[in-house]
Amino acid sequence: MVVVSTTSGARTRMSPERRREQLLDLGVRLFASRTLDEISIDLLAQEAGISRGLLYHYFGDKMAFREAVVRRAAADLVAQTEPPAEGDEIAKLLHSVAAYVDFVDANYEGYLSLVRGAASDPALRALYDEAFRTLGERFFDIGVQVVPDTAAARLLVRGWQAMTEELVLAWKAEETGLDRDQLLDLLVASLPALLTALPEQG
Amino acid sequence: MVVVSTTSGARTRMSPERRREQLLDLGVRLFASRTLDEISIDLLAQEAGISRGLLYHYFGDKMAFREAVVRRAAADLVAQTEPPAEGDEIAKLLHSVAAYVDFVDANYEGYLSLVRGAASDPALRALYDEAFRTLGERFFDIGVQVVPDTAAARLLVRGWQAMTEELVLAWKAEETGLDRDQLLDLLVASLPALLTALPEQG
Repeated sequence: MVVVSTTSGARTRMSPERRREQLLDLGVRLFASRTLDEISIDLLAQEAGISRGLLYHYFGDKMAFREAVVRRAAADLVAQTEPPAEGDEIAKLLHSVAAYVDFVDANYEGYLSLVRGAASDPALRALYDEAFRTLGERFFDIGVQVVPDTAAARLLVRGWQAMTEELVLAWKAEETGLDRDQLLDLLVASLPALLTALPEQG
Repeated sequence: MVVVSTTSGARTRMSPERRREQLLDLGVRLFASRTLDEISIDLLAQEAGISRGLLYHYFGDKMAFREAVVRRAAADLVAQTEPPAEGDEIAKLLHSVAAYVDFVDANYEGYLSLVRGAASDPALRALYDEAFRTLGERFFDIGVQVVPDTAAARLLVRGWQAMTEELVLAWKAEETGLDRDQLLDLLVASLPALLTALPEQG
């Protein structure tokens, strides 16, 4: 059980914003090994050792809490996969892809349920789509500029992202005979390889 | 309104199996422009001009009817994308990919709702996964043998399928600046391109 309090136990001195952040931290930690359906106010109350009433006070209803967890998890994913400022383009790509693979690896249950839940829940889908778009934009705006900015290239990057997600989820779920480094090599090599399929003028 | 009957109007002479098939044909035609949620026994009764009771008799409950429609649509997809016996490997691939693009194009609403519905409904997911696997197996069993049969290649083909699906759905939903032939060129060129990313020994 994780008790939400300062180390001195002085709960009442923590600001509401800070306490809400701590509770959200806990929600996101649950996301690592639970599906979104399993992440409820009840579970959080149990894990945090505080009342359900207080949680409703911080988050509103059950769906609002779930959305807050997904919003934070998506922000974590975007932050963790940020390519480094230094290094060549392939090194940046490798860093970013490795961080993505490790995020999915560490948050498999939650991530898988997000991919599935996002498909049918419009609010979760919007959060998922936004993160997907943000990750894709990196190839054109900053950091990893291995891709020409054309309509065909944008479509191809989007496809590569869908491919990457499928491959990482399959790699986690099944015996594929590939270790993490082999998976990374395949993913990183696949983007420049795909670009060779682009027409001369996109 | 489509009346389910023979051209002579001799409804009673049609076998139950034949009538069920005709009703299913109608359900699959509805799949072209309706989501799975919209394809109900009520809608079919209205479109076919027959009683709901008779439809329940043929299909059981609402979910069983929806599953029957998806099973048939998936079988249609598999049949239509069957590569021709003759021709080189790229020609077979083009034929198969073109048939896939045209199927999604013609059945966009139903297909999109399947992709989304399949994510959360285990029965639909099983049907979707089976069709996805069947299409993928083609690259190794028969027809389009451009791919070496290794663990990495199997993973890559699966990723290419996810990419293809994402690209076709994006192409249908948004202004991408690509016409059908350009999309096909991109998809067909992307598989051999991806194969160059495979390690020497998969």
